[in-house]
Amino acid sequence: MRTQYCGQVTAANLDQTVTLCGWVHRRRDHGGVIFIDLRDREGLVQVVCDPDRAEMFGVAESVRSEFVLKMSGKVRRRPAGTENANLTSGEIEVLCHEIEVLNSSVTPPFQLDDENLSETVRLTNRVVDLRRPQMQKNMMLRYKAAMSFRRFLDGAGFIDIETPMLTKSTPEGARDYLVPSRVHPGQFFALPQSPQLFKQLLMVAGFDRYYQLTKCFRDEDLRADRQPEFTQVDIETSFLNEVEITALMEEMTRFVFKETLDVELPSPFPRMSYAEAMRRFGSDKPDLRVTLELTDVTDAVQDVAFKVFSGPATTGGRVAAMRVPGGASLSRGEIDEYTKFVSIYGARGLAYIKVNDAAQPNETGLQSPIVKNLHETALRTILERTGAQSGDLIFFGADKTNVVNDALGALRTKLGHEKGFVTGEAWCPLWVVDFPMFEYDDESKRWTACHHPFTSPKDEHLDLLTTSPGECLAKAYDLALNGWEIGGGSVRIHRADVQARVFDALNIGPEEQQLKFGFLLDALKYGAPPHGGMAFGLDRVVTMMAGAESIRDVIAFPKTQRAQCLLTNAPGEVDEKQLRELHIRLRQKVETQVEVGKS
Amino acid sequence: MRTQYCGQVTAANLDQTVTLCGWVHRRRDHGGVIFIDLRDREGLVQVVCDPDRAEMFGVAESVRSEFVLKMSGKVRRRPAGTENANLTSGEIEVLCHEIEVLNSSVTPPFQLDDENLSETVRLTNRVVDLRRPQMQKNMMLRYKAAMSFRRFLDGAGFIDIETPMLTKSTPEGARDYLVPSRVHPGQFFALPQSPQLFKQLLMVAGFDRYYQLTKCFRDEDLRADRQPEFTQVDIETSFLNEVEITALMEEMTRFVFKETLDVELPSPFPRMSYAEAMRRFGSDKPDLRVTLELTDVTDAVQDVAFKVFSGPATTGGRVAAMRVPGGASLSRGEIDEYTKFVSIYGARGLAYIKVNDAAQPNETGLQSPIVKNLHETALRTILERTGAQSGDLIFFGADKTNVVNDALGALRTKLGHEKGFVTGEAWCPLWVVDFPMFEYDDESKRWTACHHPFTSPKDEHLDLLTTSPGECLAKAYDLALNGWEIGGGSVRIHRADVQARVFDALNIGPEEQQLKFGFLLDALKYGAPPHGGMAFGLDRVVTMMAGAESIRDVIAFPKTQRAQCLLTNAPGEVDEKQLRELHIRLRQKVETQVEVGKS
Repeated sequence: MRTQYCGQVTAANLDQTVTLCGWVHRRRDHGGVIFIDLRDREGLVQVVCDPDRAEMFGVAESVRSEFVLKMSGKVRRRPAGTENANLTSGEIEVLCHEIEVLNSSVTPPFQLDDENLSETVRLTNRVVDLRRPQMQKNMMLRYKAAMSFRRFLDGAGFIDIETPMLTKSTPEGARDYLVPSRVHPGQFFALPQSPQLFKQLLMVAGFDRYYQLTKCFRDEDLRADRQPEFTQVDIETSFLNEVEITALMEEMTRFVFKETLDVELPSPFPRMSYAEAMRRFGSDKPDLRVTLELTDVTDAVQDVAFKVFSGPATTGGRVAAMRVPGGASLSRGEIDEYTKFVSIYGARGLAYIKVNDAAQPNETGLQSPIVKNLHETALRTILERTGAQSGDLIFFGADKTNVVNDALGALRTKLGHEKGFVTGEAWCPLWVVDFPMFEYDDESKRWTACHHPFTSPKDEHLDLLTTSPGECLAKAYDLALNGWEIGGGSVRIHRADVQARVFDALNIGPEEQQLKFGFLLDALKYGAPPHGGMAFGLDRVVTMMAGAESIRDVIAFPKTQRAQCLLTNAPGEVDEKQLRELHIRLRQKVETQVEVGKS
Repeated sequence: MRTQYCGQVTAANLDQTVTLCGWVHRRRDHGGVIFIDLRDREGLVQVVCDPDRAEMFGVAESVRSEFVLKMSGKVRRRPAGTENANLTSGEIEVLCHEIEVLNSSVTPPFQLDDENLSETVRLTNRVVDLRRPQMQKNMMLRYKAAMSFRRFLDGAGFIDIETPMLTKSTPEGARDYLVPSRVHPGQFFALPQSPQLFKQLLMVAGFDRYYQLTKCFRDEDLRADRQPEFTQVDIETSFLNEVEITALMEEMTRFVFKETLDVELPSPFPRMSYAEAMRRFGSDKPDLRVTLELTDVTDAVQDVAFKVFSGPATTGGRVAAMRVPGGASLSRGEIDEYTKFVSIYGARGLAYIKVNDAAQPNETGLQSPIVKNLHETALRTILERTGAQSGDLIFFGADKTNVVNDALGALRTKLGHEKGFVTGEAWCPLWVVDFPMFEYDDESKRWTACHHPFTSPKDEHLDLLTTSPGECLAKAYDLALNGWEIGGGSVRIHRADVQARVFDALNIGPEEQQLKFGFLLDALKYGAPPHGGMAFGLDRVVTMMAGAESIRDVIAFPKTQRAQCLLTNAPGEVDEKQLRELHIRLRQKVETQVEVGKS
């Protein structure tokens, strides 16, 4: 129907007759002539309709925004001074000879260039929203990135093997989406939270190198960067160790960024232990573009009079300081705002010390309501360790370790970007390694797996599984980028005896093991090779690449934070007949029936 | 850990030291020497362990089938006469220097080369089953085919856009799999039966060319070539008509077969109308490798005494003949067997006439219990139309049209292959076009959509929508290959007024339209471009390519015909807590409770 895309007509086509199909982006009448910006996925082109061709002009007069047109005409240079350098087609225009309306349009719910739309309006009218050039670019970028992952993995001998969507419910952290079985009354499939067990089975089956770009599902209350269904670049390989796997994954990441964005990521990516990342940045995915750091002062404040510090310092908590260069100029209002911000992360306050000019007669040169309750040794240690200078400000976090890390870690990133404490680099990847195997869950009073129970402990830490689970490190690694975790993985356990010891440490008894993971444990007995892998969050990677505000801007048909599709109105009600076939009933209705039964 | 794959060590590596990882496929002790066939995904290599290296030999003595080994050694030529031409590595062997057991294995549930395993045993032990060289090849072939589809589509400007898995239940033929919502009590998501509506929305959104290799779900009772979840190569394009779309899809199919199997499919594919396919082959996906054909004789037997023929012939049914050259030699037993076979398709018998040598004194030269009830004109017409010669046999089908077509169509394929009535060509693709828009459903007494309600009628048949729906043809096309439907598609309706008329013909009122397809109808108002597409069944295509017996042989983790995964035991029971969170109850349990309530 057309000779090329609208957005691809250029000066190279001068004097050619072209046929184009597209949408009316804008129509302007100017000096008796009609100008139509015709749009398709590749961009815009200006079509000029002169009144001397009456029939064509009559059609042009009838068109409105978002009508679908097919037009033919001659490419000519735009009059001098009317070029548009922002368009690929900006030097030329098409003098219209013929025009045909392929379809009309009612008035669209909003103008495509309206920048002030609520997300509700956008998602309700998603089809029109997706026509916006930015959304077209985002979806193209997503495709480009996905294909780049595929190309690299294909070249490295990985093969895409599809794993089931209808699988078994295995409590693996998050809540499952369930699918009632019609054939087996009272039984349910679960949608996969990840293909973790299947990809391990594929390694045991000898496929050697596996990948898949696949949907995963978690029925959790949604945060800004989460969706009920999300896409994972899922990878597993045999006969490689931790160092080899991370090197390969790093090469892939560089390849994808180069191909997709023409960006050179640093080589090699820096590596940091989990312990160091938490100590220095309060986060296992620190944004290394921010130059601010946390400094541990727990040991220095154990005996101070200020209970807010000495309390956590003497009961296994953490007291950390964060120096803000020149921060003494922060206003009372700004500090109040940051105090409010850290409270989101559970911090009950935000202590600080302003460091005044040392030349002042004031003996410590420090200004803060808390200074009088900290003895001089403590203050000196704090100043020495943070390296604070006159004019600086020191923020403190003092609480349970995770509260301090969450609060100061988040404050570090926020304040760093707001106040310009950044390196100026656009992309700062970081391998975070040496994760602990377990964390202690205060509620259930037992050790839980930090990663998942199939993660291999470090070879030299095997004995710690029994003697000191808290100190046992895992062959696990995360890839952080600009403060986001974009991927994570581990070397898996390939020996049944080690797997059994990990289950012991997790207090998962033989019966529970067999019930939940029996098929994996069985498979491990039949000659499982050493193997490991990684999974990347495609939605996140593309969100970052697109510089988008939300992952919903890189997903064609996303759900809201209430897990709804505003376009199709999913979820929705279903027929009673459907429920009957699935051997289930709604709980609400049932209660009514029970009452009827009683009366 | 290794220098190359086991299956890739060849004479090019002579005298090199290689390090290999793999599984013990077979271990033989011969003349004091141990021979190990080491296996990985690329194939086998023979490892020779001499007793002169005692430590290594000790390890070699300890290994059993399916142990995972890492070994180093020198590549040498096999002694003359011991080469194995079936293996890439068949000219060489590796003289083992070092060996390490990476993992042991209990005795596997079966030998990998056991050809007589039940499917239950194979699926229960799927991980070991997947190690079989044939299954490894099948999964590699599947990947190769999938990547070939992607490469073609990528090159043709199509982009992969992911559509939701958690979507809305819209009765589109088959039964939906439902997913209860936790956040919205009493509401359900449905897993997509196909991304049909979403891909049309993407066209309206202006993405122009879309594809996706995606899982689709149908909760139907399973036949041999069906799975609850299956993979579709889903394609949609704008601004192309029926002829252009099928030409592009044909080019793709040739590309994929060439790249994957190095097979040249015919160019162009033959095209045939649905009506002709049914008339000549009793099937809308005829196997053109079979040379037998059906001949319509309905008009010729309307007034015969034989009620089995005249009944259907005078009440809108069909009477068809199928000539079997040389078939007069079929035995009574064979004919009985075919009679039993057609009964599967609802035929109540299988009438036949044997054509004897015309030189015989018998006046008609025909031999059959039914001849006496057919008058001479009828017999002459039958002989003329079928072209039957002496020594031939003619089978008859006489019943409702669809029963005749199903029964004789199936018999044609079975008998054709069994008795060698085949062209000798390996691959016979066929476009079947000009499908009817609607078929009449006797049960619900109304017209239903043959394809789906978004299929465009032929431009010249628009008026038939109202006057004569049964004669209205659609812009729909199927691609058949060797008797299988491997893909199907259509040009869609892009104008809201045409869509409304189709809904009228289907007797779907405005309220039902809005409820079920409101978001599509809304989208059509905002300037929908002319568009159409197609979907290929990847599982089927690969099954045919692999020459596999079942689609389960080209799916890593398939379900049984009872929709169960024997490996993971999915579906399974779930906790009461999970059901409570989803606001549902099991029907069985509820009934018990109601009774308790009453007592």
